[in-house]
Amino acid sequence: MKPLVWQARVYFEDTDSGNVVYYANYLKFLERARTEWLRSLGFQQNALMKDHGMMFAVVSVRADYLKPARLDDLLFISCEPQLQRASLHFKQQIRRGSEDGELLLDAEIRVACLDANSFKPRRLPAQMIQETA
Amino acid sequence: MKPLVWQARVYFEDTDSGNVVYYANYLKFLERARTEWLRSLGFQQNALMKDHGMMFAVVSVRADYLKPARLDDLLFISCEPQLQRASLHFKQQIRRGSEDGELLLDAEIRVACLDANSFKPRRLPAQMIQETA
Amino acid sequence: MKPLVWQARVYFEDTDSGNVVYYANYLKFLERARTEWLRSLGFQQNALMKDHGMMFAVVSVRADYLKPARLDDLLFISCEPQLQRASLHFKQQIRRGSEDGELLLDAEIRVACLDANSFKPRRLPAQMIQETA
Amino acid sequence: MKPLVWQARVYFEDTDSGNVVYYANYLKFLERARTEWLRSLGFQQNALMKDHGMMFAVVSVRADYLKPARLDDLLFISCEPQLQRASLHFKQQIRRGSEDGELLLDAEIRVACLDANSFKPRRLPAQMIQETA
Repeated sequence: MKPLVWQARVYFEDTDSGNVVYYANYLKFLERARTEWLRSLGFQQNALMKDHGMMFAVVSVRADYLKPARLDDLLFISCEPQLQRASLHFKQQIRRGSEDGELLLDAEIRVACLDANSFKPRRLPAQMIQETA
Repeated sequence: MKPLVWQARVYFEDTDSGNVVYYANYLKFLERARTEWLRSLGFQQNALMKDHGMMFAVVSVRADYLKPARLDDLLFISCEPQLQRASLHFKQQIRRGSEDGELLLDAEIRVACLDANSFKPRRLPAQMIQETA
Repeated sequence: MKPLVWQARVYFEDTDSGNVVYYANYLKFLERARTEWLRSLGFQQNALMKDHGMMFAVVSVRADYLKPARLDDLLFISCEPQLQRASLHFKQQIRRGSEDGELLLDAEIRVACLDANSFKPRRLPAQMIQETA
Repeated sequence: MKPLVWQARVYFEDTDSGNVVYYANYLKFLERARTEWLRSLGFQQNALMKDHGMMFAVVSVRADYLKPARLDDLLFISCEPQLQRASLHFKQQIRRGSEDGELLLDAEIRVACLDANSFKPRRLPAQMIQETA
């Protein structure tokens, strides 16, 4: 699958008094890219929850912080998904200034597909598997 | 009613690269104090939603930022409630270092009591009115 | 001056377990629009701090919460500035779905122009006054 | 070294519309515990930056999300540090309700000690090594 690349600007809300982006906030940028990848396939998470009783939950995060992002930086967040039966595995990177810019963060995120009521694992929607085959 | 005073430490998560607490994050401190005031009366918001189908929604905020809070500050957040039929009106202040410390923020927050499904206004629980009378 | 309108998508990071956008997080959206208004005039806040020793600090917030924003909403955030000698006064609104969409939040934000070291009030840059005259 | 255990209450600010704590926000809880461990040794990060030109930067995060935390939960966050020459390695866990409560999150965080100006690696303060030996 072709990775999606999403852009995000760094605002004051993202930074901390170390004058860099706060370490937890990179995970917000990563999720925006994953959400936009889902949206590009026609899936909105609010609708998935309401209409299909389905939700995604992060199971594990591995993130290496290579260089800090700073106020006013324009970030390029890539999202390369691998689909499994009941989960999604994303390779993600954040770069500064362009798609080939300086690598700031390298991450792997595992996301489980769950029943929104029982919180039990559930198969990915067939349509998602087809559209990404 | 006697105001409740709650404490909060300023961590990196609260600050921004201006080296002060980010302006939106003071509202988090204010809500912690309001939530602890509710808890001191025996109300937990999760239970209010699940068991009573009731929730609180902020209707308006007025906040004056007088002095900045900084990393490692210990904040004292006061919460002086006035109960009305279907709403709560809070006078709140944030001070540094002690209950009588330097005044950093002065605010008024209006909160409506809503039905969690219809989002329509709803009377405050009778028990809340009694315990605060 | 013509108001700027900025867009923002609502992600999980913005919401809370009341199933709406968390009340403090609307202030993040408001600041993104103010920052983009500054950027549209050629000012970046990181550079203002480093090169001109100048920063902006929010002095007061008045916000009326009219309707809740929800996950996946596309928000339109307007920013109508009035310049004064050493401060900026912004009228801001957040609407859902389009520039004329449902009004969710109406706010007024006062921002002071400060010396980044002394934190004392400072005149707005002459160039800012000219470009907005 | 004896691990430190720190408590944190889950407020609306921490949750998302999936009705659980937002995945990035667990990292805030982890940092509070690390910061309080430093404080228990007599180190405040604001002072470390100003007086010693020293700062800590997260280098890597590995986190396994086992069970979700929810609004009003009381969390117990442990922090077991291993000191190296120019870095700190923390084993951290988050449990619900008590120090032996249900395990929600298991994490390893690597933190580098940096010169606050050059951002180059720097030895840990001798006093920190002595107090934790």
